[in-house]
Amino acid sequence: MTQRVNWWRWGDPAHRFEPPPDFLTCLFERLGVAPRPKAPEPAPPRLPDRTPVLDGLPHETDDAHRLAHAGGRSYLDLVRLRRGSLEHAPDAVLYPATAEEVGEILRRADCAVVPFGGGTSVVGGVAPARGSHRGVATLDLTRLSRLLEVDRESLLARVECGIMGPALESELARHGLTLGHFPQSFEYSTLGGWIATRSAGQASGRYGRIEDMVAGLRAITPAGEIVTRAVPASASGPEVRELLVGSEGTLGVIVEATLRVHPIPESRAFASYLFPSFEAGLRAIRRMAQEGPAPAIVRLSDVVETEAAMKLADADRSFGLKLLRFLGRSPGAHLMLGFEGGDGKHARVIARREGGFGVGAGPGERWDRERFRHPYLRDALLDYGLLVETLETATSWSNVPRLYTAVRGALSGLILCHVSHVYSDGASLYFTVIADAPRGEEEERWTRMKEAACDALVSNGGTISHHHGVGADHRAWLVSERGELAVKALRAMKGVLDPRGILNPGKLHS
Amino acid sequence: MTQRVNWWRWGDPAHRFEPPPDFLTCLFERLGVAPRPKAPEPAPPRLPDRTPVLDGLPHETDDAHRLAHAGGRSYLDLVRLRRGSLEHAPDAVLYPATAEEVGEILRRADCAVVPFGGGTSVVGGVAPARGSHRGVATLDLTRLSRLLEVDRESLLARVECGIMGPALESELARHGLTLGHFPQSFEYSTLGGWIATRSAGQASGRYGRIEDMVAGLRAITPAGEIVTRAVPASASGPEVRELLVGSEGTLGVIVEATLRVHPIPESRAFASYLFPSFEAGLRAIRRMAQEGPAPAIVRLSDVVETEAAMKLADADRSFGLKLLRFLGRSPGAHLMLGFEGGDGKHARVIARREGGFGVGAGPGERWDRERFRHPYLRDALLDYGLLVETLETATSWSNVPRLYTAVRGALSGLILCHVSHVYSDGASLYFTVIADAPRGEEEERWTRMKEAACDALVSNGGTISHHHGVGADHRAWLVSERGELAVKALRAMKGVLDPRGILNPGKLHS
Repeated sequence: MTQRVNWWRWGDPAHRFEPPPDFLTCLFERLGVAPRPKAPEPAPPRLPDRTPVLDGLPHETDDAHRLAHAGGRSYLDLVRLRRGSLEHAPDAVLYPATAEEVGEILRRADCAVVPFGGGTSVVGGVAPARGSHRGVATLDLTRLSRLLEVDRESLLARVECGIMGPALESELARHGLTLGHFPQSFEYSTLGGWIATRSAGQASGRYGRIEDMVAGLRAITPAGEIVTRAVPASASGPEVRELLVGSEGTLGVIVEATLRVHPIPESRAFASYLFPSFEAGLRAIRRMAQEGPAPAIVRLSDVVETEAAMKLADADRSFGLKLLRFLGRSPGAHLMLGFEGGDGKHARVIARREGGFGVGAGPGERWDRERFRHPYLRDALLDYGLLVETLETATSWSNVPRLYTAVRGALSGLILCHVSHVYSDGASLYFTVIADAPRGEEEERWTRMKEAACDALVSNGGTISHHHGVGADHRAWLVSERGELAVKALRAMKGVLDPRGILNPGKLHS
Repeated sequence: MTQRVNWWRWGDPAHRFEPPPDFLTCLFERLGVAPRPKAPEPAPPRLPDRTPVLDGLPHETDDAHRLAHAGGRSYLDLVRLRRGSLEHAPDAVLYPATAEEVGEILRRADCAVVPFGGGTSVVGGVAPARGSHRGVATLDLTRLSRLLEVDRESLLARVECGIMGPALESELARHGLTLGHFPQSFEYSTLGGWIATRSAGQASGRYGRIEDMVAGLRAITPAGEIVTRAVPASASGPEVRELLVGSEGTLGVIVEATLRVHPIPESRAFASYLFPSFEAGLRAIRRMAQEGPAPAIVRLSDVVETEAAMKLADADRSFGLKLLRFLGRSPGAHLMLGFEGGDGKHARVIARREGGFGVGAGPGERWDRERFRHPYLRDALLDYGLLVETLETATSWSNVPRLYTAVRGALSGLILCHVSHVYSDGASLYFTVIADAPRGEEEERWTRMKEAACDALVSNGGTISHHHGVGADHRAWLVSERGELAVKALRAMKGVLDPRGILNPGKLHS
């Protein structure tokens, strides 16, 4: 029975990412905070008594199971877990092994049911809310993890959706294939979670977003099953698949998907450039996206993020940076490009023509080795009483500067930003905030900033989320972005699929 | 006030496409039919009396207006128009000039309302059905035809949806831009029609399908307005845009769209190859789609279509064909590739490696000059009492042979087939049927064939439509493809957007 052992921080309990002392000192200085000692590790809290909610369905009610499903991995989740405030732990955890068992649970459960993949939501997407029900059970889907079928000729793979990222890629690799979906949460998130949240992976420039990868899917709802036919394209009416992708466990449980896969690329390569400004870098990556082919990975940091990343990498000692400083230039904005199966010649030419100063493959290769360690760093900073959280959006190219300025204006502390997904018509913006958050004030500080930032997003032409999803945390802004009528129409559809309203209350439109 | 003058055949009344006599003789021979004389031109029929249905809304009730909106351009539509069987002409035609006028009509109309762009539906999508209402009015949207805004930096254009293909492209060309959407109906269809039917254009290999081009849209429903935000990507729940794309006028009237546009390519080029078999050609185009970049235009004809096209082009006299015949080879399967803004080198290499015999740019250039004349040929064949109709589907690469065989088995007469849209995971199949249809038996003959073909599609892993849509003609197969639950969910949504059920009764799920 799958369980996440690290109940209060990210991932593998054996892993830590301690920030270098210099970095920490610098951070405290920048935030104007007196250095403080590291907090002690929390002891597992005693959970509130459970309501018996499931009758005749196999389930677990031990504290370990409930604690492992008590929340996602947002800053507020982590703060609450550390503090032991667990009024919202699920009453029970179910571990179905087949789609049929999922169907039986959804038909028979007389309580709220929260579908749960890897539990890495950073928007409250797996918070065990009861809604109007007498109890809440979490539906852990990680036992549905088989690769069912590979169609090498059509480059399609049918897979059960509880499979985690590394298992999926290693199963596909046995056939020489890859899905190419590498979100930051890759190591601890599931295919079903990626689909339910409309996620995007770091190599989206080549492989697209999850909705581009899903040819067909199978979802179990309390009212029955929906299977969308895996065809390359169709004009048979509104696309039902697109209703389920992004449905965040509120309409049904996505149990199977037929995925568009790719031969593993023969080569991978990285290249980095320093631009005099974020704006200059934006011009370059816009041209790459519009002229194509776009690099698989495009990651342009603003000046603040570039400096912070260099400090973290101890890059002050590097020859390139010393040279830049000697020439009287600031490092500016760092652009990292990753190429898969091509030499990226056109993108490299654009980078140089738009004023990029090539700094080689080193930074990209280092990022590639360490990319899944970053969430551990956040826990380490939380240990020192710092608030660390991210938010993300997307907008058209012409609107990027306005949105960037508006969101920065709504936040406070150290604000880092990068673009990590590019499209012909626009780009994502990913903000990281590091701020002081004295014990007891964490929730209020972040909630206030988050509200201001979300207001800024929706009133400045951004979307409330580019790839994190809506969950509980973005619900309040959904109507501003969508309009009341669209939300009403989606709710009517939910009424058909989930007439008792048991699926994931308090998330999305639920 | 826009009117289509050619009420009983395709397009411009000044255009005709008379088949060469040899071609016609050959066709009659192949079908085992004694040559028959050309039918005389029909006189405009007298329309059944209209029910007064609109009160206080400006509208037209003249026969000319009603006749111009009496149906689409399917074989059955044309047969009925020629025969003067017009029990289903609309009672009135409305010509709103603004989105606000559309809103007023939808709020106030006490009858069925059929949204109408260019009226080129080949699946009964604009049939003026009353449903349970006392009358039916057609909503001609061609006055909403302005290019509203161009964002050159983001390569986005906001356009009113009643604009016809040529007007849209010429407006965009003034900015050096193109949408790149060229369906067969291009000259006489509207942007709104393309979106409402999930259409695909001939250059989909480069520009994608219409759903890839729409960044955002604005729809007017009887219950109010839906505006989807034009952002490059979003994770804010199920994609509402994808509900409206393909909604076929049953959920709302799509009045505006923000489109992803492209700089006009610097060069265009064509290349043709003859393959020993359809299967060999399929292998080549599959590799082109999977290895990329795919040519903008890919059109692989099967052996029967290749022969028919050569006969039509009088290619028997060409040197290349004479040479092939001299060498004892049949022409086999013709593959035509069109490249935009690139040399297509990789695709050309694949074509040769997979056994293609290069026959130069000529056939493609000729097709390019004549491509919008083909619908005129159909009318000409109807003049001689022949049945000419098309149907299309899509499936995964590995399933193409099975589906191809099954659909051919369900049809009779001369059956031509080509692939015109390729994807990494599969391809479209486009069938043209030419058969004998003695006067009076046209409907029964085609309906029987169409039913058998649609049964074959849904039971052999195809979709009921790749780009024609569902309309009235494919409704019966929608539940087989989608499942009852999905259809029920979509109907619930319609209940919110169109509570009185006035929009396009009898189409799609309505």
